[in-house]
Amino acid sequence: MKKRMNIGLIGHKFMGKAHSHAYRDVAMFFDSGVVPVMKVLCGVGDDLASTAERYGWARFEESWEKVVSDPDIDIIDICTPDNYHKEIAIAAAKHGKHVLCEKPLALTLQEAREMQAAVERAGVVNMVNFTYRGVPAIRLAKNLIDEGRLGSLYHFNAFYQQDFSLSEDFPFVWRMDKEAAGAGTMADKGAHVIDLARYLAGEFHEVACRAATFIKERTDPGTGAKRSVTTNDAAVFLSTFQSGAIGLFEVSNMSAGRKNALVLEISGSRGALRFDLERMNELSVYFADDPEEVQGFRTLLVTQPSHPYISHWWPTGHVLGWENTFVHQIHEFLLAISEGRKASPDFFEGVKCQEVVDAIARADAERRWIAVAKG
Amino acid sequence: MKKRMNIGLIGHKFMGKAHSHAYRDVAMFFDSGVVPVMKVLCGVGDDLASTAERYGWARFEESWEKVVSDPDIDIIDICTPDNYHKEIAIAAAKHGKHVLCEKPLALTLQEAREMQAAVERAGVVNMVNFTYRGVPAIRLAKNLIDEGRLGSLYHFNAFYQQDFSLSEDFPFVWRMDKEAAGAGTMADKGAHVIDLARYLAGEFHEVACRAATFIKERTDPGTGAKRSVTTNDAAVFLSTFQSGAIGLFEVSNMSAGRKNALVLEISGSRGALRFDLERMNELSVYFADDPEEVQGFRTLLVTQPSHPYISHWWPTGHVLGWENTFVHQIHEFLLAISEGRKASPDFFEGVKCQEVVDAIARADAERRWIAVAKG
Amino acid sequence: MKKRMNIGLIGHKFMGKAHSHAYRDVAMFFDSGVVPVMKVLCGVGDDLASTAERYGWARFEESWEKVVSDPDIDIIDICTPDNYHKEIAIAAAKHGKHVLCEKPLALTLQEAREMQAAVERAGVVNMVNFTYRGVPAIRLAKNLIDEGRLGSLYHFNAFYQQDFSLSEDFPFVWRMDKEAAGAGTMADKGAHVIDLARYLAGEFHEVACRAATFIKERTDPGTGAKRSVTTNDAAVFLSTFQSGAIGLFEVSNMSAGRKNALVLEISGSRGALRFDLERMNELSVYFADDPEEVQGFRTLLVTQPSHPYISHWWPTGHVLGWENTFVHQIHEFLLAISEGRKASPDFFEGVKCQEVVDAIARADAERRWIAVAKG
Amino acid sequence: MKKRMNIGLIGHKFMGKAHSHAYRDVAMFFDSGVVPVMKVLCGVGDDLASTAERYGWARFEESWEKVVSDPDIDIIDICTPDNYHKEIAIAAAKHGKHVLCEKPLALTLQEAREMQAAVERAGVVNMVNFTYRGVPAIRLAKNLIDEGRLGSLYHFNAFYQQDFSLSEDFPFVWRMDKEAAGAGTMADKGAHVIDLARYLAGEFHEVACRAATFIKERTDPGTGAKRSVTTNDAAVFLSTFQSGAIGLFEVSNMSAGRKNALVLEISGSRGALRFDLERMNELSVYFADDPEEVQGFRTLLVTQPSHPYISHWWPTGHVLGWENTFVHQIHEFLLAISEGRKASPDFFEGVKCQEVVDAIARADAERRWIAVAKG
Repeated sequence: MKKRMNIGLIGHKFMGKAHSHAYRDVAMFFDSGVVPVMKVLCGVGDDLASTAERYGWARFEESWEKVVSDPDIDIIDICTPDNYHKEIAIAAAKHGKHVLCEKPLALTLQEAREMQAAVERAGVVNMVNFTYRGVPAIRLAKNLIDEGRLGSLYHFNAFYQQDFSLSEDFPFVWRMDKEAAGAGTMADKGAHVIDLARYLAGEFHEVACRAATFIKERTDPGTGAKRSVTTNDAAVFLSTFQSGAIGLFEVSNMSAGRKNALVLEISGSRGALRFDLERMNELSVYFADDPEEVQGFRTLLVTQPSHPYISHWWPTGHVLGWENTFVHQIHEFLLAISEGRKASPDFFEGVKCQEVVDAIARADAERRWIAVAKG
Repeated sequence: MKKRMNIGLIGHKFMGKAHSHAYRDVAMFFDSGVVPVMKVLCGVGDDLASTAERYGWARFEESWEKVVSDPDIDIIDICTPDNYHKEIAIAAAKHGKHVLCEKPLALTLQEAREMQAAVERAGVVNMVNFTYRGVPAIRLAKNLIDEGRLGSLYHFNAFYQQDFSLSEDFPFVWRMDKEAAGAGTMADKGAHVIDLARYLAGEFHEVACRAATFIKERTDPGTGAKRSVTTNDAAVFLSTFQSGAIGLFEVSNMSAGRKNALVLEISGSRGALRFDLERMNELSVYFADDPEEVQGFRTLLVTQPSHPYISHWWPTGHVLGWENTFVHQIHEFLLAISEGRKASPDFFEGVKCQEVVDAIARADAERRWIAVAKG
Repeated sequence: MKKRMNIGLIGHKFMGKAHSHAYRDVAMFFDSGVVPVMKVLCGVGDDLASTAERYGWARFEESWEKVVSDPDIDIIDICTPDNYHKEIAIAAAKHGKHVLCEKPLALTLQEAREMQAAVERAGVVNMVNFTYRGVPAIRLAKNLIDEGRLGSLYHFNAFYQQDFSLSEDFPFVWRMDKEAAGAGTMADKGAHVIDLARYLAGEFHEVACRAATFIKERTDPGTGAKRSVTTNDAAVFLSTFQSGAIGLFEVSNMSAGRKNALVLEISGSRGALRFDLERMNELSVYFADDPEEVQGFRTLLVTQPSHPYISHWWPTGHVLGWENTFVHQIHEFLLAISEGRKASPDFFEGVKCQEVVDAIARADAERRWIAVAKG
Repeated sequence: MKKRMNIGLIGHKFMGKAHSHAYRDVAMFFDSGVVPVMKVLCGVGDDLASTAERYGWARFEESWEKVVSDPDIDIIDICTPDNYHKEIAIAAAKHGKHVLCEKPLALTLQEAREMQAAVERAGVVNMVNFTYRGVPAIRLAKNLIDEGRLGSLYHFNAFYQQDFSLSEDFPFVWRMDKEAAGAGTMADKGAHVIDLARYLAGEFHEVACRAATFIKERTDPGTGAKRSVTTNDAAVFLSTFQSGAIGLFEVSNMSAGRKNALVLEISGSRGALRFDLERMNELSVYFADDPEEVQGFRTLLVTQPSHPYISHWWPTGHVLGWENTFVHQIHEFLLAISEGRKASPDFFEGVKCQEVVDAIARADAERRWIAVAKG
């Protein structure tokens, strides 16, 4: 008999929708030993009731405090704006709930460490949702690297490029206000590429960075007045890794033509690979020990039964979408609960990521190389 | 108040899974005015009960006759092997159920016509699920063609290539038996490319065809003995269209390296486009009236809000998967019911497709050009 | 001491330019044992003298009869319009000259056979310049097929697509006049894809074809009047091969967006490959016996020292251009002369190609499958 | 009457071969008003005589001093190892010869400035051969940027990646010795990407850099003993530009699978473009003002008559090779001589490039951001 566990999801916007969908789907495709029950959707706004119904939640609730303290709830899933993460996660942990939190874990390293301490003290299963670890092609990349197919890593390049705010007519939004959004896209997109770098290439050593705000004033849609943009909309940074590899990073909301291009280019002494989220079902791999005559990047369609997660879905060649990565991550979370062990990536991983985000922000502010704290 | 309609799904294997998933998801993302209620899953096999539960069906049933005659059921969805389509669809129509049927509509043109007659007589909404019409990139292609962006069509090339039976060790399966499977991949994959050709380029005029069975004997996994393969595993055919365009087609289960490559290459007097299902979120388009200096195929990532279906899902750049095409088709079906009008593609379209399948089978058998019956 | 041989080149337009360039370059990069001496350029037009000087020919001459009978000349290279090929080649052979002739060898099969008879009777080295055999990637493809890396061939698809006459404003040119140009693009581009098919997949068995003339009238730039286009501007055809493979072909001058796309897609029991002349330095190959996890089309950059011809040029990664294929073919021709053996492809190969061109023309005209004469 | 000018080429290895070929070809395709006469090839080694003959030089000479002082010679072309550039160029200028010098102009900024002073003092036409400015696609990119099609530039990313020394078995060569080769690949490949950055995005402001030597010892093929590698084999660097754009650079000889990948990714407020030298006949461009529905990167085949240099070569769709870029550069050089004006890029441009090379070397050595000297 599978265990049923009740979910309280805080946040009903973009991430709330993605998580809701994943809870609907996960038990159909994966068996973690835990069946998630969509109990309560928590949010603020006139559309909360209708959204909860449409997404399949049994009820809705405006007070997150009530949800985290509700004895009926087993799991708290945090999809709020970043500045609520800490308070909710710590309260949830105190009430003994398992906690899944969207990335980035917190606005600052200090906050992230407090959150980590709280969940560890409470002994609850905790996870920060770096959802791209759930892309089958990225997990395959991880396997290939771990098997030594790329040899010692030399280069780790990652680019997370979108162009949503390219137009000068794009309005001022809360992410452009330093008070509300912290370190800007450097932290927001940065957290994704840094987590993937840590996942695939190991710990950072030093970083140098330059952030930019290409459009310095935008129109506030509320007031119609111009407002100063106080966060960055792009950043480039270099890194060294503890392994000796060197890294090259760009994050940008101003990269014309890129809609959701999270590109990884990783190479080492025996091979290389390339990934682009816009073609997330593919992985390009190169093996230096192939005979010279037939050496070349192989374009793998990562939909074979032997590829990560694929056997749960459809036959060979039937591609997955972005939303499926959430199903994978939530499955991993439920599986950890079911097996009574740590989830991965947990809050500790979130803290490690935040350490690097912190370092690049300092590197930019102080215009010098900054050493990342050793773990 | 939305209308709730009860679904009876016949078939719980590959297509049954895809349709089940679509019913789970559709009301979360689309509002057709009808909320589908997953009432009963019908199938045969020990895994039926557990499958029904896992997929979210309220109950299960082994007799399709009971399901189609159940007054509680409003919609019959047919995902059985092809040789059951006719009987079930006709019975469902007689009981006044709306009918969604997987493709190909029937094993023969005669059967397809009987099915069409039955649903039209009964006045029920009917649809044959050519699921690739639900790919946003293909619907965008249709829009561009209808807007005249390609001008008069000259070339329509379509290739549906897989390699699942490439290995000599791949076993004998029912699809390789002419008695059970009819015209082989010529009909199975053929139906897909023919429907897309009709959808995008209009009616066929004449066809020539050559089918092949590259591996003529395979091992029956039940008996361990060799059996003769009596269906084709690949076919190529030419066509002319009523519009004057000329067509080139390949369908194959023996195309090494192709996992689910449904490639369309369409060109006309003003432009061209290219689509590949393995990269289903992309469409390549070329406009001959671009200035020469900057003329080239544009790789569109079909995830913009203005692209078909996309605004219902995720922000720009967040790609969809194969399974989402079923959500789109089922939404179209429910919408037709809700609005009291014909669905598209309906059984009539299925019949038209079958006429072409019939013609290519005859063209191969008689080794000559065959005119397709005019509609 | 290398032998010097004197070249007489007939034709100073497009192909004359390409051949002239190849003669300038060949001895710098390749050592055939024969050094070609650019003696005389033969052509008609006011620009002949200046062209001869610019291209590096010692002298020029308007009468081809004088050139082919000139005792000083060792090799006749024919780059004239197709309708002169026969007469010049036969005359050259009679005078004991080695003969290199542009493709297609002749306007008709009968002519081609007369030409073959003449050169064989005269015992001169002869070659028809199917220049794409000189593309390193295509020669690599040939090697891989010969080594069995693709296994038994199942599918051979070839498309030769351009769009130069897409516009209705494109003028009437001599190629659109059946009297002057014979079978149209079906023969012109057809000869290229048919030769490559024979080179890579062996002899044809049967063909079916449909040609089209999409724009039926064009303006004669001389008279300003409309003229009827009497040749085809596109054709599609099917084939079977003696090996059992099936073939799919398109040739078109009306394929929007394709500038010089000669695409080959070949697959067999053990692998597949893809080539596109627009990316002529690349070859995509797939091996079915790669481990499933890392199976995929490999994009080879065909610039490795071990690849055909490459070691004569530049280091790895420095790509070649279209013009280099002529250098390769002329090197092969000179090498055959130097070694006193047959060149390849010789006029016999040209005849074999013409047999298939003939068959597709008949297949189109008679609207039925036509068997290609067995060699 | 065209002016004939006599060339003395110093260096008969890789670059000497490329330049020799360009001199053979240039007057056939381009009319600069100057016809280059291949007078003397200068080099050291047993193969000099045979090479000179094979490449088409009238004579050969071992002493570069004799060549630069030869009154018969009009133009000195320097293709020697980098450490000879300065001495030869200055001597050539003193003798009043026009000077074409391979890149990088010199080993150090100081040397480069001396060379610039010498040619300016002598009033001779001078050029440093950044050959990639001669790629039609790059020149088209320049035109598009100059026309404002990309708007204000935000991102300039350039990667020059090869893998020739990836293997541990690759021997110790002179480029790995700091004494002989200066700043390693950081300077060698760096000069290429820096010149292209200046050409396309304008002057640098500040840089940060990290170089690496991944394989620290290699076997000297002469002695068979291990030697320490004292130059870098890879480097990554960041930049800001005076325009406000930010830059990201990688140069590497250790990038598995990259044979000659010089990739540019440039984006601005109105568009973006991408170039890869491995596909040097293509340019990808994106225009943000295309209608949303049909926005996407366009893959231009840069072989249209309206594209730079193309009308001199072959019809549409017939691609060029790497060697042709030298023809273009030498044409530009001869044209400048013919027209009695400065060539571009001249030694001044070489100095400007060297300033940035110097800055990245210091930035790496001092582990801090370095401001590039303002011009």
